[in-house]
Amino acid sequence: MKILIVGAAGTIGKAVARELGQRHEIVAAGRNSGALRVDITDGASIRRMFEQAGRVDAVVSAAGNVHFGALEEMTEELFGIGLRDKLMGQVNLALIGREFLADGGSVTLTSGILGTDPVRYGSSASMVNGAIEAFVRAAAIELPRGLRINAVSPNVLQESMPALAPYFRGFEAVPAARVALAYSRSVEGHQTGQVYTVA
Amino acid sequence: MKILIVGAAGTIGKAVARELGQRHEIVAAGRNSGALRVDITDGASIRRMFEQAGRVDAVVSAAGNVHFGALEEMTEELFGIGLRDKLMGQVNLALIGREFLADGGSVTLTSGILGTDPVRYGSSASMVNGAIEAFVRAAAIELPRGLRINAVSPNVLQESMPALAPYFRGFEAVPAARVALAYSRSVEGHQTGQVYTVA
Repeated sequence: MKILIVGAAGTIGKAVARELGQRHEIVAAGRNSGALRVDITDGASIRRMFEQAGRVDAVVSAAGNVHFGALEEMTEELFGIGLRDKLMGQVNLALIGREFLADGGSVTLTSGILGTDPVRYGSSASMVNGAIEAFVRAAAIELPRGLRINAVSPNVLQESMPALAPYFRGFEAVPAARVALAYSRSVEGHQTGQVYTVA
Repeated sequence: MKILIVGAAGTIGKAVARELGQRHEIVAAGRNSGALRVDITDGASIRRMFEQAGRVDAVVSAAGNVHFGALEEMTEELFGIGLRDKLMGQVNLALIGREFLADGGSVTLTSGILGTDPVRYGSSASMVNGAIEAFVRAAAIELPRGLRINAVSPNVLQESMPALAPYFRGFEAVPAARVALAYSRSVEGHQTGQVYTVA
């Protein structure tokens, strides 16, 4: 398979490239690195990336930002960051990617544990993750040509704990290599409309 | 209690007013009817409504639009309608409403069955409902002064089936009067961060 990984330079993206790269051709994309450059908040940039990539068998998104902050300070504008970036950026990868995916190809998006297990400062991440998971369930029943779509919802990463531990006390952090297996299940398996939780 | 119902003229809003109006003072708000007029896509309009309502003990939102359409025709712009209206409109009711709620007061938002059980043409509704439910879980752990927040996720309404039956075949439609009980549980009970599913 030819697999486009968006966010390939991130902790998850690198682990997914390592896992899937053993068996498949990887095209790495990212905001500041990778063979293809893309700003997922810009539909035209996404379209250019796909035109450069050509036909692909799978799109994996491990990209997307949200604003973290105390609920008390959150505003419509700050929630808007996550809605434009991690939510609609990833949804646009699916919407635009449809045209470039081979029959039976797959889209795998990334949500996260905060969708179901919130922490302080994470209300925007929770909102966005819940939206991604519900979108994936809904889009799966309408995609044509055997196209599939799933999400991976990882726990906090072991690799991120040096920076994030104070915000995630008591969470059983998971290694990115284990999270990468969920992307493999989505890409190399045959299910659709699933949320693969790596807890 | 003094309870502000936004979307009071809708099928759910009327049923909630009937249920809670037996025991509490209801302030009805809506886009085109009610004692107070509000456009929930406009933060300034929401603020004016709350200033006119004065201190309230509970806010119930039974308002919010999304675009229904085939996934094939859905664009970033069409998804944006639901994100601005049913999602951020309701979230803004919670964010701005905080200032006007009495200690221990509650916010009750409305999601819907499509968040977990998608139908064709409903990808935007699914996305928005998933976002609302995850937001409610997250916001609940950060609200000050004993403020509470929950969501009600109703099945399709019996009252809506004349128009919606072809899109909801096999769904066990529920009467609005039963859905209203879930709002009563949220407002008159003491839980927070809950999604009350009326299935």
